[in-house]
Amino acid sequence: MSEAIKFILPDDKLPKHWYNIRADLPQPLPPVLNAATGKPVGVEELTPLFPLELIQQEFSTERHIEIPRPILEVYRLWRPTPLRRARSLERLLGTPARIFYKDESAAPTGSFKPNEAVAEAFYIREAGAKKLVTVTGAGQWGSAIAFAGALFGLQVKVFMVRVSYEQKPYRRVLMETYGATCIPSPSKETEAGRRTLAADPTSSGSLAIAASEAIELAATDPDAQLGMGSLLNYPLLHNTVIGLEALEQMEMAGYWPDVIIGCVGGGSNFTGLAAPFLGKMLREGQKVRAIAAEPAACPSLTRGRYAYDFLDAAHMGPMAKMHTLGSSFMPSGIHAGGLRFHGMAPLVSHLKEIGIIEAVAFSQTGCFEAGIMFARCEGILPGPESNHAIRAAIDEALRCKQEGTARTILFNLSGHGNFDMQAYADYLAGKVDDRELDQKTLDAAFANLPSVRPHNVK
Amino acid sequence: MSEAIKFILPDDKLPKHWYNIRADLPQPLPPVLNAATGKPVGVEELTPLFPLELIQQEFSTERHIEIPRPILEVYRLWRPTPLRRARSLERLLGTPARIFYKDESAAPTGSFKPNEAVAEAFYIREAGAKKLVTVTGAGQWGSAIAFAGALFGLQVKVFMVRVSYEQKPYRRVLMETYGATCIPSPSKETEAGRRTLAADPTSSGSLAIAASEAIELAATDPDAQLGMGSLLNYPLLHNTVIGLEALEQMEMAGYWPDVIIGCVGGGSNFTGLAAPFLGKMLREGQKVRAIAAEPAACPSLTRGRYAYDFLDAAHMGPMAKMHTLGSSFMPSGIHAGGLRFHGMAPLVSHLKEIGIIEAVAFSQTGCFEAGIMFARCEGILPGPESNHAIRAAIDEALRCKQEGTARTILFNLSGHGNFDMQAYADYLAGKVDDRELDQKTLDAAFANLPSVRPHNVK
Repeated sequence: MSEAIKFILPDDKLPKHWYNIRADLPQPLPPVLNAATGKPVGVEELTPLFPLELIQQEFSTERHIEIPRPILEVYRLWRPTPLRRARSLERLLGTPARIFYKDESAAPTGSFKPNEAVAEAFYIREAGAKKLVTVTGAGQWGSAIAFAGALFGLQVKVFMVRVSYEQKPYRRVLMETYGATCIPSPSKETEAGRRTLAADPTSSGSLAIAASEAIELAATDPDAQLGMGSLLNYPLLHNTVIGLEALEQMEMAGYWPDVIIGCVGGGSNFTGLAAPFLGKMLREGQKVRAIAAEPAACPSLTRGRYAYDFLDAAHMGPMAKMHTLGSSFMPSGIHAGGLRFHGMAPLVSHLKEIGIIEAVAFSQTGCFEAGIMFARCEGILPGPESNHAIRAAIDEALRCKQEGTARTILFNLSGHGNFDMQAYADYLAGKVDDRELDQKTLDAAFANLPSVRPHNVK
Repeated sequence: MSEAIKFILPDDKLPKHWYNIRADLPQPLPPVLNAATGKPVGVEELTPLFPLELIQQEFSTERHIEIPRPILEVYRLWRPTPLRRARSLERLLGTPARIFYKDESAAPTGSFKPNEAVAEAFYIREAGAKKLVTVTGAGQWGSAIAFAGALFGLQVKVFMVRVSYEQKPYRRVLMETYGATCIPSPSKETEAGRRTLAADPTSSGSLAIAASEAIELAATDPDAQLGMGSLLNYPLLHNTVIGLEALEQMEMAGYWPDVIIGCVGGGSNFTGLAAPFLGKMLREGQKVRAIAAEPAACPSLTRGRYAYDFLDAAHMGPMAKMHTLGSSFMPSGIHAGGLRFHGMAPLVSHLKEIGIIEAVAFSQTGCFEAGIMFARCEGILPGPESNHAIRAAIDEALRCKQEGTARTILFNLSGHGNFDMQAYADYLAGKVDDRELDQKTLDAAFANLPSVRPHNVK
């Protein structure tokens, strides 16, 4: 047998805690603000929406947060996930680079999302809530939370951005198969939805609009709490099992990654993989470049403003300092539905701002080309979101080839593309829209950034 | 941590050989016959269609057949697959039974099919052929062989039964993504297809018709050879890696299975799991019940005749002794497309005939119900084919509950249902057709069984 290509951790190496990078940050994360007062949001303001345990995790700066046993029990269904070396892809590219990928597509619903979903469903059930309300774009989060809700006996209601609801009917069927209810947003179920529909009856929706609907429902129904698929600190935290496992697996493989890559929409899978490596760098000085790969059609990290903005369109929630395109920004209907959000997680934005991570944006066709190259070599058909990470990894490997250097690249295969076949059909038929996002559209969205000046915060 | 639920074999335990149950059979398998002469088919007759290595495997009665290193290298991408104990499902059922499943959905294209596909593509490439022609029903085989073809640089052409081609456009897209060509059958590309279309221009096709098209093309193009997704001995042989791994994993788990279950269409995933256990029983006497689960709409093992019949509709290929509904039988459009074939693999038929295995047939709704129960407990959405195995496993577990006995059940999760969402949508909407197959239809198909009396064979 030639060199190993698969690194499987034994079950007993499953991480027993999540890693909180806030413990190791050289500069603290700017606080989330109450939009009315301009003051940092406190625990009390969040209790109508979230269970106390999650709120405490949101504010925590402790390095290690213990994973409760019932969550570990569920994680064991599919975790630890494999780490693989993409030898066929390396050969195809003729690169001296070593390309590793963490295979989060091996999770039950086909993406990394159950890492967070299982944790949230557990804490929400423990807090005594009966219902979980949330939003989904492409549906990876929606199906993960539908599954997690089934496991913990919660009624799950998912507001799905209407354009995705219509583009991806099978994601909806998957959620329903797990027993969840899926509603196209904007809907008539909420004041926020009705207002949006009154202004534009044909609105195709956005994650920001769906978020307003979910917040409204969770805030008004005492039995319901809000599920967050990304953006806040704790969904990012729950994904650090990815990177903690990968740290051990890279050690098994005998390499420290020079470059770590993940695709970013909200930032949760990227941070999940990168944070434990970045923490080691911050604490022990072992250098690693972490690259966040985003779509050129929704380039919050590479072209957004770093400013306080709302996460939701109706401005019902608080404001966070982040790279944003403005909460009124309507991203074009690219197939990487999971990457279509106007803002980036405050934690990821902060890491970018203080120079700990880098960002790069790609057009769609280049991403599909990379994804298909990967599929033909490794077998797994990647999600359109993951294709951004693959594109970045291939580009880095080709640079290694040009330079004649053998760097070690690790990327996160955040999910498979089995529910995104229309995207591949469109790409193969030459129908993928690859227009550049023009500055005028962006400027118009920036003009809607809140003018509220936060108090006590520079 | 409570009791283990996942049994992962280390890479170096990957089987180095396939297991050939013919070495341990108490009675030999009846030969395949040349329809014109009634005499057993010899190696020479098969050489226009298949590489010599595969033909030799087809006739072999050696117990162990070595897996060539390049095939092992590819297997390592996803093998060994996990064996899991379905603890949540056991709890839900309240059964004392132990339910284990071998997770073949973890393979790149989402089913067990790459086990065979990689082997066939390798041998066909080694034999110098440039093209591989084959047929697919639901598309699991088609996508696996498309992937394997990409790995070994073969042009792959897949005749897909028209009803599935139209029902499952995304399976076609998947094949095309791997670089294969997919043609709805009956087609105008072959004499057999043109003849069928002349008789019935709206024919929705069958695997038997598609097989005639593929045989014709492979026989007339010297650059092409025929890929077989099931039925013959060697595709069944190549799947024994499943059972060989499971043997070791059940040992890790500390249980010998009392009952082994697989769904059957042609018989390849069932045999792949069961044969190594049955071999141990035949050689060493350790008792195991092996149950083949088939759809009531296409019940070859439970209601078919055990007789010599053709594998293809145009009767271009040889005749095999098998449980058959007649090669003119048109199964109804059930969603378990992989189980829609008029005949059963001769080896499986023989095992049934000599009393080594059992068979059971299920209606569709009961299978979907079982599959959804499984999905909500274990996360993985099973293929409609696999739901037949799950139904059988749940029924057995419920019998254990009634009897108060703790039997150990092992079933094969042959594949996931990510490409079968329309099936789940139809089931959830109450639109699954569950009519019983009437005896009149069956009698009409039996009337078309070949009257040719084979010579030299009773």
